[in-house]
Amino acid sequence: MAEDPTSAEDRLIARHFQPIATHPGALGLSDDAAFIKPPAGCDLVLQTDAIVGGVHFFPDDAPRTIAGKALRVNLSDLAAKGAKPLGFLLSLALPKDLGDGWLSDFAKGLRDDAEKFACPLFGGDTTLTPGPAMISVAMFGSVPEGTMVRRAGARPGDLVFVSGSIGDAALGLLLRRDNPEWKLDTAQRQHLLTRYLLPQPRNVLAEAVRTHASASIDVSDGLVGDLIKLCRVSQVAADINAVQVPQSDAALAAIAHDAALRETALTGGDDYEILCTVPPDKAASFRAAAQTAHVPVTEIGTISAGEGVRFRGAQGQVLTFVRGSFSHF
Amino acid sequence: MAEDPTSAEDRLIARHFQPIATHPGALGLSDDAAFIKPPAGCDLVLQTDAIVGGVHFFPDDAPRTIAGKALRVNLSDLAAKGAKPLGFLLSLALPKDLGDGWLSDFAKGLRDDAEKFACPLFGGDTTLTPGPAMISVAMFGSVPEGTMVRRAGARPGDLVFVSGSIGDAALGLLLRRDNPEWKLDTAQRQHLLTRYLLPQPRNVLAEAVRTHASASIDVSDGLVGDLIKLCRVSQVAADINAVQVPQSDAALAAIAHDAALRETALTGGDDYEILCTVPPDKAASFRAAAQTAHVPVTEIGTISAGEGVRFRGAQGQVLTFVRGSFSHF
Repeated sequence: MAEDPTSAEDRLIARHFQPIATHPGALGLSDDAAFIKPPAGCDLVLQTDAIVGGVHFFPDDAPRTIAGKALRVNLSDLAAKGAKPLGFLLSLALPKDLGDGWLSDFAKGLRDDAEKFACPLFGGDTTLTPGPAMISVAMFGSVPEGTMVRRAGARPGDLVFVSGSIGDAALGLLLRRDNPEWKLDTAQRQHLLTRYLLPQPRNVLAEAVRTHASASIDVSDGLVGDLIKLCRVSQVAADINAVQVPQSDAALAAIAHDAALRETALTGGDDYEILCTVPPDKAASFRAAAQTAHVPVTEIGTISAGEGVRFRGAQGQVLTFVRGSFSHF
Repeated sequence: MAEDPTSAEDRLIARHFQPIATHPGALGLSDDAAFIKPPAGCDLVLQTDAIVGGVHFFPDDAPRTIAGKALRVNLSDLAAKGAKPLGFLLSLALPKDLGDGWLSDFAKGLRDDAEKFACPLFGGDTTLTPGPAMISVAMFGSVPEGTMVRRAGARPGDLVFVSGSIGDAALGLLLRRDNPEWKLDTAQRQHLLTRYLLPQPRNVLAEAVRTHASASIDVSDGLVGDLIKLCRVSQVAADINAVQVPQSDAALAAIAHDAALRETALTGGDDYEILCTVPPDKAASFRAAAQTAHVPVTEIGTISAGEGVRFRGAQGQVLTFVRGSFSHF
């Protein structure tokens, strides 16, 4: 009689991850692959992003928030593309010494977000690694055929909108890493730290983006850099009023203490807000749809013909940024 | 003027990976996501597998074969499910010191196989890691609606088939790692080493599997273990004639030198052959279809009611295996 080679780890994974695999095509994770029939008349939207311990999260972060971050950085991309989540594949590489409790907590975090965002697990792969934990997610969503909102598509005259507030996560990372003396109160500190720790992707805004935006990108590498990417692919220029860029009380307090942090806020990453361009005749409707979705959106500038991205300060002067010194523009 | 934050690495990736992103929905990798419309009347088949340096490949393996392995372990799963490849997402975590030449060679290997298996790149994510290189692939394929071949579905009376030969890769790994004295000739050594280094997935057999097999799995964790998984999900038992398990001349030569290697061959992994069950009335047609596809297939046993997997030796004795000592059976 051949013995069952199922390892304790396999069983643990089946126990923790099966409850997240709620779609019938996931076959309860009992197979090598899953199958799905995309909604009729829809395109499938495909996207992948990975997070690595010591690079995208601190190894001592709570496993639940690590799981949440792994899913949410991907959910944020779907939101910016106007897509509705369908599900995800999970590829886990874990150090040997993490232990059962870690995996159990990680799976709980994953399950909470899979439910919250209606995005079930379709399958996965787990392996040990001599390196740091790495969590790679491949996520798929759907849009009515031909309606995925791209980086390309911004037109001269379009208005530039951004959701939520910008810079909190980049400041939160500095706060976490260097513990600087910014004289923030407890609530302000907590706000910045939390915004770094666990993204709040704007999936409730996806439908409004899809039906109004000419181009869109999620702000993951910093507002400045991501706007440059959008403008380059759209072959347009942008003029941004830096003072109109929405910032939280906490971020403003930090910047009031140290003016150099304004650049950190504008060029830092991990915002997971949506940056999109909207034709002027759709702007009022977009604002209304965002309000219905309970997501603040702010007009920060305009698209024009040409190339390049200009951020202007309160006196109209063009701001220069130290970060990202190489230029194609 | 805000400067372009595009890093040298981003540009390198665009240069090397764009040529692999041949599907229009991949948008030349210029966006955060890709879109695809699955073929009419088809289900999408989803699958992910990752490989990690020092675990699934040797860090000094040629980058082209590492790329090939990353794709092929996923292609093998699609083949066993009867699915036709549509494309893949790539998530790369790379050590800082790999260098441009490595990435360039890696991309070449990826491109060769993407073309060979008609499986273009749809998007990806690249990050640095302080650990070993990790390459995670999420692959999607298609089958006519409802026809994905599962692990579940084997019925008493079905015949058990396996493609190609079993055990070469596991022996090749031992040969590579321990350099044992098996008195093999150069061609035999090379055969085993190559079978470990670069899988030869059986995608040309996928259609024959889809139209004939009642259940199927690719042999990646070893013939014995993978058959146990198939039988468990199908809720059946299997009786296998170990002497009928197809083995290469090289594997037979190694086993002739050291009889203990028979177990290595049967329980070792990385074969990337297809193990499937076929109803008796479809067996002749399956053999013919496999012959047309130029893939050898061998009948190695039968499915029966009950549970458990029995491998029998030349005298009909039930073989026991050391590996995998915990049992649900």
